[in-house]
Amino acid sequence: MSARVYVDGVAADRVSALDRGLLYGDGLFETVLFVAGAAPLWPRHMARLQHGAQRLNLPLPPLQALHDTAVRAAAGLARAAVRISLTRGVGERGYAPPARATPSWIVSAGAAPLVPADWYARGIRVRCCRLRLAAQPALAGIKHLNRLENVLARAEWDDAAVAEGLLGDRDGHVIGATAANLFAVHGGRLHTPAVDECGVAGVARAEVLARRETAIERLTWEELMRADEVFLTSSLRGILPVASIDATPFAPGPVARELQAQWRAAGLMEADHA
Amino acid sequence: MSARVYVDGVAADRVSALDRGLLYGDGLFETVLFVAGAAPLWPRHMARLQHGAQRLNLPLPPLQALHDTAVRAAAGLARAAVRISLTRGVGERGYAPPARATPSWIVSAGAAPLVPADWYARGIRVRCCRLRLAAQPALAGIKHLNRLENVLARAEWDDAAVAEGLLGDRDGHVIGATAANLFAVHGGRLHTPAVDECGVAGVARAEVLARRETAIERLTWEELMRADEVFLTSSLRGILPVASIDATPFAPGPVARELQAQWRAAGLMEADHA
Repeated sequence: MSARVYVDGVAADRVSALDRGLLYGDGLFETVLFVAGAAPLWPRHMARLQHGAQRLNLPLPPLQALHDTAVRAAAGLARAAVRISLTRGVGERGYAPPARATPSWIVSAGAAPLVPADWYARGIRVRCCRLRLAAQPALAGIKHLNRLENVLARAEWDDAAVAEGLLGDRDGHVIGATAANLFAVHGGRLHTPAVDECGVAGVARAEVLARRETAIERLTWEELMRADEVFLTSSLRGILPVASIDATPFAPGPVARELQAQWRAAGLMEADHA
Repeated sequence: MSARVYVDGVAADRVSALDRGLLYGDGLFETVLFVAGAAPLWPRHMARLQHGAQRLNLPLPPLQALHDTAVRAAAGLARAAVRISLTRGVGERGYAPPARATPSWIVSAGAAPLVPADWYARGIRVRCCRLRLAAQPALAGIKHLNRLENVLARAEWDDAAVAEGLLGDRDGHVIGATAANLFAVHGGRLHTPAVDECGVAGVARAEVLARRETAIERLTWEELMRADEVFLTSSLRGILPVASIDATPFAPGPVARELQAQWRAAGLMEADHA
């Protein structure tokens, strides 16, 4: 990330060492794609942030100031990845949330990750992670700051040719990837795993759900491996067809292709990467 | 907490807004009791920190500098609660841990929490939390920075007369309290729940295990409620007999009394609170 960092709307690159975001991971975040200064999925990011804040009983900062700051951070970048963190702010010692929390919000921006054109055209290589996600309905779905599971899963491989790692729960279901959601097509039927026990309800996932009839249901690894097509969704990287899961090959299919076309039309995937 | 804060050994109260401790909760912490400038359980805290760092593949800071800084932070306080956080430092965007992480370490100190004398003498009131801990063997036992479960559980009550909340797993076992470990005695037999699926392996718990023969085993809520005595252990608060769990009364028993005497003798529980 560059030095484009704002704390509570003010250019600053440091936060209190006693912020509960650092002490306990007590907060939420969003990673928003800005294209030429605008974020097409901004309303979905704010909807998720508001939902997460409600779940954690976290006060929201003024959303207009949040937006203005994000725009400022993204200014001048053709494609920016803007991270917004919202924490419960500085608190007393101990887990008890302060009765009157003053939230901290941090906005930082850098160039959005470049996705190799091949990844969109021919699909990505993914692997199955050994780590199993823990089931915690109180935290499932929201994009909170407690991300050690994702860190440990992402640390399982360092082959740059492997784009993502798939994560499952402890009951034999696949849930998603370390930083993306997963969709599968069986006989023309599109589905994506539920994220009510673990996993994150991605903003790109929500966008797919709004555009295509999709069944939200449990999916076993065996069912996944029998899919006609598999693709991942990410707000930063768009629609990524899966070309292989470990040694098993898959081919990009018509559903991923149609969504990619829609993503490009909406300015959410850079055309010259496809 | 006071303004006694040190970042990487230097007096400073702010950390990088891009520290992975804040971005992902990617780190560990210890809360160490200092009495008149010394920490009787320091070796146990360092052993746990080293074990956690190994589990998360986190480089350790120089332990002598860590100790010197903690002593400096605690200086002049009769009884200090010194928090030590260790994070993976500033990283690139994304979950992948940097190949060469430069860890950040933050030391802060404040007066140790005052425990009402009654709590030691007559025991504490505790409640059962609704939140159930998620099972995650990859993170169980270590004191990592992903503490939203503890925050949510502690937010379930705000009656100051209730000292702690008990936490169980999703399979009907009790594991511990929001910020303490739990021990139970049945017919003279001392046991404490295993923390290999969830929960934290507390330093005070380790000290009890070293002093008394204790069975480490699963414990159902029903078994807990039939115990002859129940007590909690905390490095900051010592040995806390339980006087009631919700509406069910318990009485401080001989095992807790004996451990309290040992804790006082070791300078770990202030005598005039007992």
